[in-house]
Amino acid sequence: MYKKKDFPVSKIRRFLEPGPVVFVSSAWKGKQNIMTMGWHTVMEFSPSLIGCIISNQNHSFEMIKKSRECAINIPTQDMAKKVVGIGNCSGSEIDKFKKFKLTAAAASEVDAPLIQECYANFECKVYDARLVNRYNFFIFEVVKAHVAVSPKYPRTLHFRGDGVFMLSGRSIKLPSKV
Amino acid sequence: MYKKKDFPVSKIRRFLEPGPVVFVSSAWKGKQNIMTMGWHTVMEFSPSLIGCIISNQNHSFEMIKKSRECAINIPTQDMAKKVVGIGNCSGSEIDKFKKFKLTAAAASEVDAPLIQECYANFECKVYDARLVNRYNFFIFEVVKAHVAVSPKYPRTLHFRGDGVFMLSGRSIKLPSKV
Repeated sequence: MYKKKDFPVSKIRRFLEPGPVVFVSSAWKGKQNIMTMGWHTVMEFSPSLIGCIISNQNHSFEMIKKSRECAINIPTQDMAKKVVGIGNCSGSEIDKFKKFKLTAAAASEVDAPLIQECYANFECKVYDARLVNRYNFFIFEVVKAHVAVSPKYPRTLHFRGDGVFMLSGRSIKLPSKV
Repeated sequence: MYKKKDFPVSKIRRFLEPGPVVFVSSAWKGKQNIMTMGWHTVMEFSPSLIGCIISNQNHSFEMIKKSRECAINIPTQDMAKKVVGIGNCSGSEIDKFKKFKLTAAAASEVDAPLIQECYANFECKVYDARLVNRYNFFIFEVVKAHVAVSPKYPRTLHFRGDGVFMLSGRSIKLPSKV
């Protein structure tokens, strides 16, 4: 389990921009669920906006659409089997927290549960739903971020489709102005 | 230089979903430009849709908004200095193809130039501009894709902000259903 600290929401791009697969957790009417999600982009620093495709074929879609909340959680490479397992089954039939032995921790700003075993947890509220019906595209505002104290950067999984995942490598510093 | 082949546009997610920094190239009124871009997501397989944030602070913004076209090009780790250099200067003052010694190749479906030195080139047309004014968010359709014959996956750069880039690592296969 990671020891975590509060993290500035305007700086979470450092974890999401490199493109990791994430878990999206949600709650609605006393039920909780988790899905694996790979189609997301940072959209703004402040407010801290993240755009995501959450297919209406996912059990989570209605839960998030109705509750207007979720948490985005970053799993690490040691959780690869859970990433695939969670992506391969539906919350309509299974309690994924129980099946995959994950701990649902309470968030502070949303009712959606945080996945305690993940490197980082971002509490999100729907900010703009106008592209949900047409593209299943949600724009979330990250309202609170919890990030592991160490390591500085997580070892993440990056999906290529058809069961292939790219493993994140080392970081380098270059003289970028941004 | 990579030898390239036509690639199915519905399968380009394998290169963009892991989150690489890309070059966006554009043309308008006889001028060409390149910008570095890291905020993008796959949105649909077919039509092949990519959502991107292109700030209106970039010289490329108006060129793309007016021409309604661009190319998304994937640079590899050996091009790291060009990635940073292109991100650090503006096309309002500089011919970036010339300054960074890159080759503008003709596309087949768009007037935007392809960057020949890149691993892959995706010819894009604006598909939906309704979030451009509010979020600088363009939805592009990839209408044609050119991808290097080998290697199967490129070694890409993934931006974390503040000059830090994650280098893509090796790929693994897991029993995912998608």
